[in-house]
Amino acid sequence: MITVLRIGHRPERDKRITTHVALVSRAFGADRILVDTRDLDLERNFTSTCQRWGGSASIKTGVKYREEMKNFKGQIVHLTMYGEELGKGMATLDPKKDLMVVVGAEKVPREVYELSTINISVGNQPHSEVAALAVFLYSYHGSKMPKFTDGQMKIVPDPRGKTVLENDTDD
Amino acid sequence: MITVLRIGHRPERDKRITTHVALVSRAFGADRILVDTRDLDLERNFTSTCQRWGGSASIKTGVKYREEMKNFKGQIVHLTMYGEELGKGMATLDPKKDLMVVVGAEKVPREVYELSTINISVGNQPHSEVAALAVFLYSYHGSKMPKFTDGQMKIVPDPRGKTVLENDTDD
Repeated sequence: MITVLRIGHRPERDKRITTHVALVSRAFGADRILVDTRDLDLERNFTSTCQRWGGSASIKTGVKYREEMKNFKGQIVHLTMYGEELGKGMATLDPKKDLMVVVGAEKVPREVYELSTINISVGNQPHSEVAALAVFLYSYHGSKMPKFTDGQMKIVPDPRGKTVLENDTDD
Repeated sequence: MITVLRIGHRPERDKRITTHVALVSRAFGADRILVDTRDLDLERNFTSTCQRWGGSASIKTGVKYREEMKNFKGQIVHLTMYGEELGKGMATLDPKKDLMVVVGAEKVPREVYELSTINISVGNQPHSEVAALAVFLYSYHGSKMPKFTDGQMKIVPDPRGKTVLENDTDD
């Protein structure tokens, strides 16, 4: 069970980046997305994507990050450019335990570092929480992407163009 | 030599996403970032990041994507959710040839698919061009992140907090 917790979300400013965080969470195998500011547009858009493309990921906005982190039974990874190197950090994780991955927006409160089991970085350079989340989850799953088979739409990989199948309702 | 070409950039709407694209390009080992709409703020911010954090990546905005793609001597990978699976697509690339990676914003013109050597997808699901670019470059480099040693600032990886060194000017 993998939870992604997005903190510091401001709906006006972060609409697109947090949407990317949520879609990456789903596409790279997270089960649950939590966002610390209530945002019904984000919930609606995300749920609509899940209906069309499949999977069982859920989203909840307006959570209290401190409580979520304190009450979480499992290991918490905070992704930050200052954290431990990806490989070394990954090696400390127990794949049998539940995982929460925390991604911040701009300034992250000090206590997020302290409430986390470990702070991990993808590259120790400034780049993007969307990228860090994707590469972290991709590595966590051994460089494999999850498959989604129950959506209304399905892409047939195509090196030259676009091939999309619509599932029958019986599927 | 790796070039990243960002197309469909609209400075108002895409400011933050394109900034993430540029920072990911640098942090994951691209040498040159091209953006199809002139955006001097983006150029300034990116150049300032390079000064502080090192490396020799360059940025140029306001390029004509069609000409850049047509004149490019090397292989062109367009990242799209419709493309060939990452592993299969990667296996067709020649690491000795120069590489251009194209990432679009919303709707990508048909000719971008045709001007590319291959269209590749990271997962064949809707998520994020920032994530796709990061995972593609990460895989291309054999799951290694480049090191930057010549910046004014340097992070010492830290599982518990923040440790940043400022280089002396003599370094």
